[in-house]
Amino acid sequence: MSTSNRPYHHGDLRAALLDAADALVEKGGDGAVSLREVARAAGVSATAAYRHFTDKEALLAALSARHFRDFGAALGAADTAGGMAGRGRAYVRFALARPGRFRLMFSGLRARSAAHPELREASCAAFEALRGAAGSEDAALRAWAFVHGLAHLLLDGALQGGDEEAVIARLVTEPPPARGGG
Amino acid sequence: MSTSNRPYHHGDLRAALLDAADALVEKGGDGAVSLREVARAAGVSATAAYRHFTDKEALLAALSARHFRDFGAALGAADTAGGMAGRGRAYVRFALARPGRFRLMFSGLRARSAAHPELREASCAAFEALRGAAGSEDAALRAWAFVHGLAHLLLDGALQGGDEEAVIARLVTEPPPARGGG
Repeated sequence: MSTSNRPYHHGDLRAALLDAADALVEKGGDGAVSLREVARAAGVSATAAYRHFTDKEALLAALSARHFRDFGAALGAADTAGGMAGRGRAYVRFALARPGRFRLMFSGLRARSAAHPELREASCAAFEALRGAAGSEDAALRAWAFVHGLAHLLLDGALQGGDEEAVIARLVTEPPPARGGG
Repeated sequence: MSTSNRPYHHGDLRAALLDAADALVEKGGDGAVSLREVARAAGVSATAAYRHFTDKEALLAALSARHFRDFGAALGAADTAGGMAGRGRAYVRFALARPGRFRLMFSGLRARSAAHPELREASCAAFEALRGAAGSEDAALRAWAFVHGLAHLLLDGALQGGDEEAVIARLVTEPPPARGGG
């Protein structure tokens, strides 16, 4: 992060503010972010930051949207290589790589998506990439819930012992044929 | 919560401190808790509170242990009625009933369990109750990850539309036969 006072081009400053917010979120969660603090970290005035984001929520929505685009790209790339299991493993690895990023993406997703179309589109696209060719809607939702839960359990250290990568490889396998109703 | 200065019996004060911490966590997350604040809410001096808990972590570990005992009881009761699907639904409902409680139970679980045997025992017992007669170790872990992820997705409002209870009933069904390796 720059603390110099060199002028930014318009798009560059937006990106620099997102970078600064990203670093603050990873360090202390979204509670650690204020637009003023982000501006300071990017080396510009709060006024300059407000030209790009009306408030903290708008900034976090834009940052989440960026993350969801990266997430979708990671899932898409994994799909080519490994099918459903490949995407599921990529999902969990994405979460473990940067826990602060993953938590930000989902906390407050409903409210932020409702207010920010950019986030709504990016998150829907990522979920479509996760779903891939998974059969029914319910099968896709079950697969999503499974990898999401595995990510959280690993992030919180709830699973006893063993190397995370080994747990992922062992548990995230190709899905079984359609599950009978209950 | 009492704000009177009537004396507590020893066990009563411990329970009252846990109740006060519980209310604070549900309102503002575990970041909102301090032993001093909890003592104030229970109407006693900080010194009196320190007689029961050496620090905030000890208090949160004891509160989490209490929650895991309730969790295990809820899962056990559901088992009698509804088998694996019944336990899974009870898991998700427990999370949705009080999000702050559920988040506390899992955030920092690894570190708190390591330091507090009471929490370790209560959480292990709850996971055993969840597992029930689920076949293999891996099948049990997959079932756990699935309901844990569904709980988080519902808590964060990530699933589009529809009544939560209907989603739970539709997705949490009896597990399929053993999943082929992949």
